[in-house]
Amino acid sequence: MSATSGSAEQVARQARAAFEASSHLLSSPSSSASADSVRSSALLSIRTALESNRARIAEANALDMEAATALVAAGKLSSALASRLDLFSKPGKWESLLAGVSDVAALPSPLDHVQWAKRLAEATEAKGAIDLYRVTCPIGVLLCIFEARPEVVVNIASLAIKSGNAAILKGGKESKHTAAVLSSIIAAALEEAGLPSGLIQTVETREDIQSLLHLDEYIDLVIPRGSNELVKAIQRDARMPVMGHADGLCIGYVHEDAELDATVGTVVDSKTDYPAACNALETLLIHDSLVSTPFWSTLAKALLDAGVELRCDPATLSALASSLTSGGKVVPAVDADYSTEFLDLILAVRSVPSLDAALSHITTHSSGHTDVLFTSPNSPNPTAAKFTRSINSANVFVNVSSRFADGFRFGLGTEVGISTGKTHARGPVGLDGLVIYKYIAKSQPHTNNGPQTAAEFNGERKWAHTSLQPNYPSF
Amino acid sequence: MSATSGSAEQVARQARAAFEASSHLLSSPSSSASADSVRSSALLSIRTALESNRARIAEANALDMEAATALVAAGKLSSALASRLDLFSKPGKWESLLAGVSDVAALPSPLDHVQWAKRLAEATEAKGAIDLYRVTCPIGVLLCIFEARPEVVVNIASLAIKSGNAAILKGGKESKHTAAVLSSIIAAALEEAGLPSGLIQTVETREDIQSLLHLDEYIDLVIPRGSNELVKAIQRDARMPVMGHADGLCIGYVHEDAELDATVGTVVDSKTDYPAACNALETLLIHDSLVSTPFWSTLAKALLDAGVELRCDPATLSALASSLTSGGKVVPAVDADYSTEFLDLILAVRSVPSLDAALSHITTHSSGHTDVLFTSPNSPNPTAAKFTRSINSANVFVNVSSRFADGFRFGLGTEVGISTGKTHARGPVGLDGLVIYKYIAKSQPHTNNGPQTAAEFNGERKWAHTSLQPNYPSF
Repeated sequence: MSATSGSAEQVARQARAAFEASSHLLSSPSSSASADSVRSSALLSIRTALESNRARIAEANALDMEAATALVAAGKLSSALASRLDLFSKPGKWESLLAGVSDVAALPSPLDHVQWAKRLAEATEAKGAIDLYRVTCPIGVLLCIFEARPEVVVNIASLAIKSGNAAILKGGKESKHTAAVLSSIIAAALEEAGLPSGLIQTVETREDIQSLLHLDEYIDLVIPRGSNELVKAIQRDARMPVMGHADGLCIGYVHEDAELDATVGTVVDSKTDYPAACNALETLLIHDSLVSTPFWSTLAKALLDAGVELRCDPATLSALASSLTSGGKVVPAVDADYSTEFLDLILAVRSVPSLDAALSHITTHSSGHTDVLFTSPNSPNPTAAKFTRSINSANVFVNVSSRFADGFRFGLGTEVGISTGKTHARGPVGLDGLVIYKYIAKSQPHTNNGPQTAAEFNGERKWAHTSLQPNYPSF
Repeated sequence: MSATSGSAEQVARQARAAFEASSHLLSSPSSSASADSVRSSALLSIRTALESNRARIAEANALDMEAATALVAAGKLSSALASRLDLFSKPGKWESLLAGVSDVAALPSPLDHVQWAKRLAEATEAKGAIDLYRVTCPIGVLLCIFEARPEVVVNIASLAIKSGNAAILKGGKESKHTAAVLSSIIAAALEEAGLPSGLIQTVETREDIQSLLHLDEYIDLVIPRGSNELVKAIQRDARMPVMGHADGLCIGYVHEDAELDATVGTVVDSKTDYPAACNALETLLIHDSLVSTPFWSTLAKALLDAGVELRCDPATLSALASSLTSGGKVVPAVDADYSTEFLDLILAVRSVPSLDAALSHITTHSSGHTDVLFTSPNSPNPTAAKFTRSINSANVFVNVSSRFADGFRFGLGTEVGISTGKTHARGPVGLDGLVIYKYIAKSQPHTNNGPQTAAEFNGERKWAHTSLQPNYPSF
């Protein structure tokens, strides 16, 4: 279902209705099929539908590729971006899109987990005990905004369905034909599986997004993935919570007791494994005492050999031999370099006199995504203890590449994105970032089922507040 | 410290600096005093400072009371609101303010809990294992906006300090003298306890709030407590997440198998225990089959006897004998009654033909705060199972008064408020709603401490993703 069939508000209202309908639909207790098995088999039907509609998807994808090729020829689109549109040429890409759907289906359900249970009050002669359960449940309607890569439609739709949410998707305009076809195949498969087709919808225009960002009556959470500008604009305009990250300014700090080999290999990996990623290293701080030793020149040489341009403060610049600096890849840093997410083979370098100075630089300049300490691996290590307690970024690593900040690598199954927010979910966000909890309270059966009133606790009835086994409440 | 000493932006910058400084300060490993014991003893110093400054606080409170009395006389302030300003006349109020501070100090710390730990990769011949820990940490800087009651300053300051956050507080203008004195006593006590005084600050004007709501660079979360209008305006203007609730439209549904005595007592308590509270019942749905039986007339009589005005749909109205309706307290409902949070002794009543119709009414009209089912207490009860799974409000109760939706009653110690948001924290929010988590990853020590790179996982190194005991990472 696409927004061409109606206004953005209609899409939002349909999404809300589909969410509520599916919650009601899947809430009837039944021994034959749990809500999760209905959702998982809907995902498998979606996989089958995608497989059997491969030709139709390829046709839409060819349309998008054709338009993109023309834009590349006109210099209006990068060829890198155009090639990310292509679902079929790169070996394994289509297969991994399909595998993603069944992988999500096979994950444990994030719903109906009892996070804790508590007896609020013991039974009395006149009435039963009162018990409270904190149970995970879906968030509701998600609005997911991303750029280019059409496979994200399938990825996010799978996560939303598995977690019991509805999703409105908006991809990049370059992938609009592919996204529309994928979404309509998913909607049809949902309907065939007995779930509301409105659970997954797409919208196509920026105007739609502008309208949707004000509809907090229908939409519970916005998840943007894309450029800084896109995310910042959404954070400014949205009336509902936004989960995502604008910047990935990741900082490493090499303490005086760092080990050379481990540090060199890990720093080079952090910077060069995928420089365009949000978890690539952008600034490296080095303890003063290492700057005039072979440590820094060895590290600098390894980075230069890997093709990295170094933007250095005076101390780290002057410490390098002319054989290293003469290639033109070592330049003086300006202040702005320490606030720049290069997303390229460029690294800002600065010397600091102490751990405290490094903490202070990180606190001021880091975007709170991923910060890494390089230090001795041996215990006790008060530097590492202080660094990991003191820095409150989403990911705080010790002697580990910043590139590990990733949902797959964290073993979360798959991710909807990486959040640098301070609430709800942070770092790589998997299925459990798409749920929230509700409190269920019940009066336990009793010979005399008297009323359960709050007023009597002003008098003689006492609070118990004792822990219970976290079992799902039975009725 | 109050905003009169500088602009709102300065206050925000100081709060952020104080938060970062306290994180760094309390991050050094030390056997003599854990970070939590420093925070808790700061709270005890605050309690002592409040006790010994009672005269100064009473003086400021008298100023506020004097101004309020003049406003009441001029008909510009309700006497109920004015009396809520008074910290000293009502027996036990001042003592319970003081007790609140030491109670929060005694709560278990919500910080540094390892939510889970996982081995990302086993050690190889060349390098150590890589382990990941999800650990709770503070959110950062909170902006708390509330009306009147000056004791909320102390309450929220205690929660913020215990959870490692900084807080900027804005109370009602009627309590400004009291709030300013309380806040400056707290700030001085913090400083004496070795913590930054900027952790707790107050601002006084609406203009300050307007500026602060745009400073997402410094402020991480806004917590408003007050009228619908206040909360809605803040949700519209804030650039950062908002945790709170605008409406408390709580709905009860009496199913056909409900037990008369329990239902009557619990419905009357839900409506009348404290009608002005957000967790008071505002709408009652009744199954058709009960309307023309003694069940409904007994329930109606009990509500009328408790002083409740009933706004009834045609079916529930015509079923009542004229002896009940003649008092003028039973009137026909209009549509708007089912969307109104009366906050008064008024209840909208409507008959529904089925559980599904009740679910649909609740989904459409409930504000997602607290909804209650009245049904048979016996098992199996598919109605209760369906109701609790289907309704995703923050609090979903079965045969329990809506008035139980409260942090103290839930045993959360104390609450910062009740949230109807769908992300982060919902329902009564205690200390654990003021924290988030970060991911700490470390390379374990190894004979050969080789580099920990992401690149090698494209080749021969394999992911482990096995669970570890959730112990705090040692360094």
